[in-house]
Amino acid sequence: MRTLTGLQPSGKLHLGNYFASIKQMVEAQNGGEEMFMFIANYHAMTSVGDGVKLKNATYEAASAFLALGIDSAKSTFWVQSDVKEVLELYWILSGYTPMGLLERAHAYKDKVAKGFESKHDLFSYPVLMAADILLYSSNVVPVGKDQIQHVEIARDIALKFNNAHGEILTLPEARVDEFVATVPGTDGAKMSKSYGNTIDIFADAKTLKKQIGKIVTDSTALEEPKEWKNCNIFTIAKLFLNNDEQKALAARYEKGGEGYGHFKAYLNDVIWEYFKEAREKFEYYNANHDILDEILDAGADKARKEAVKLMDKVRNATGIYR
Amino acid sequence: MRTLTGLQPSGKLHLGNYFASIKQMVEAQNGGEEMFMFIANYHAMTSVGDGVKLKNATYEAASAFLALGIDSAKSTFWVQSDVKEVLELYWILSGYTPMGLLERAHAYKDKVAKGFESKHDLFSYPVLMAADILLYSSNVVPVGKDQIQHVEIARDIALKFNNAHGEILTLPEARVDEFVATVPGTDGAKMSKSYGNTIDIFADAKTLKKQIGKIVTDSTALEEPKEWKNCNIFTIAKLFLNNDEQKALAARYEKGGEGYGHFKAYLNDVIWEYFKEAREKFEYYNANHDILDEILDAGADKARKEAVKLMDKVRNATGIYR
Repeated sequence: MRTLTGLQPSGKLHLGNYFASIKQMVEAQNGGEEMFMFIANYHAMTSVGDGVKLKNATYEAASAFLALGIDSAKSTFWVQSDVKEVLELYWILSGYTPMGLLERAHAYKDKVAKGFESKHDLFSYPVLMAADILLYSSNVVPVGKDQIQHVEIARDIALKFNNAHGEILTLPEARVDEFVATVPGTDGAKMSKSYGNTIDIFADAKTLKKQIGKIVTDSTALEEPKEWKNCNIFTIAKLFLNNDEQKALAARYEKGGEGYGHFKAYLNDVIWEYFKEAREKFEYYNANHDILDEILDAGADKARKEAVKLMDKVRNATGIYR
Repeated sequence: MRTLTGLQPSGKLHLGNYFASIKQMVEAQNGGEEMFMFIANYHAMTSVGDGVKLKNATYEAASAFLALGIDSAKSTFWVQSDVKEVLELYWILSGYTPMGLLERAHAYKDKVAKGFESKHDLFSYPVLMAADILLYSSNVVPVGKDQIQHVEIARDIALKFNNAHGEILTLPEARVDEFVATVPGTDGAKMSKSYGNTIDIFADAKTLKKQIGKIVTDSTALEEPKEWKNCNIFTIAKLFLNNDEQKALAARYEKGGEGYGHFKAYLNDVIWEYFKEAREKFEYYNANHDILDEILDAGADKARKEAVKLMDKVRNATGIYR
């Protein structure tokens, strides 16, 4: 059973990304699941128009995911654009994609409604995503609820292709993790880059302090006992703490005599410590693109082997082989 | 100045294809114009769903164009799918293609109106055509009137891309040859495969006779003088004859004593003789795919050199290089 995940090189990763997705991915990998993970730089072009920015973002994302536990010995980890076969499958699948399927895609309609320019890449995004999934004969695609429809589109396209040419493409299934933690941002709403309420994983000390300083609390006086249950500081801290540590922190809240500033300082230390090793690795990779290139090239070779196997069949079926 | 032409591997070529397009192409080539010509097998997928059929059609088209005078030493001649860079440019250009541009494309609307299934490949066809044109920095694209809009779309996309990234893409121009001969079919309407009124270039003797037999004439009796001016046999024969030969044939019409059967037999001989050498070459290439492969591989290498030069700039500008 093969699991495929596309990772957006969309700048700074935050605690929401980590606890709602990256941590599970790394656990699945270390638990022996066959993981295919790629940095979706072709997709990112739909929102990043600047070349230098995208290139840097690609390297940063690769550094970050490796630092956070993706192991290129256990998993297949590559940059999307390094396996060009995906674009040939993208074109071929377009012939098995009714326009209605794309016209009904929520994500496209939502983006246009939000004022994104209505361009062909945004519209045809689900076909490229289908190619990503089907090229590697993926069985499972872990997604958020908003992406279920895209996996269904990939299934529909695969069915149409298989109806014409036999059982060549593997039908994928979306996996939605219902038990995933919702990580609150500094304002209590869901942590999200677009809300400007993130705490970033690889923030430097100064930025981290500033982001944590923004966490919204009530105005209970320093000496008073405090409510930990709905406190944003506590809810975020909980993600990093074991049961005993959680109890100890709750006791400090209930005892009084400490202000939210103390708890923020504690959270700061906890986060800084938790990502210490990852931070060092991140900086190492991001400063040594030659080493990163070696890892990514090897990953692309591994991925390409699978891609070529599938494309041999697809090209043969459609007559693209001379 | 570089001229680009896409050739459809759409089965049997007929006199209309030859006199309205292939002959001019070969003359331009032999006159020293820099010609880039490719067999558009990715495009053909929008109408050919069967793999074996498309593969054979690709080889047949290559054999036919070489036999009719495309010279791979003078021109760059290749199969579209052998230069994969075109699909990367296709995806990249999608980010510079407003949906409105595609929604206004006549060819798509016409095909859907004619009952073609409304699929994404048909819709996005102009973006792939833009990639074909822009990948080779083509200056001129000879087209029929129905294709002018597609060249304009390629221009618009190139302008948008250049506005964002500087003068990287060459703006192409459509060239419509107003003086081109209209070749009548056997029924007098424009010769076209879809009308079933063609005379095929590489028809075997039996088929050729049958197709010529279908030419519609009036019912003037054998012994009477005949009108050559509007006779379909004469109009077709004219394409093959020099002035003296035309005069001689006209004289036979005016003299009387010969029936249309005689003129058809004469036309048959003329066509058979005219394409004799080409027919032999066609059969040779089509029976020797190994030799054809060598020619097409060398052509793809030549084309790819140009493609890679352009893509280096495009990837750099958009950040697709790691």
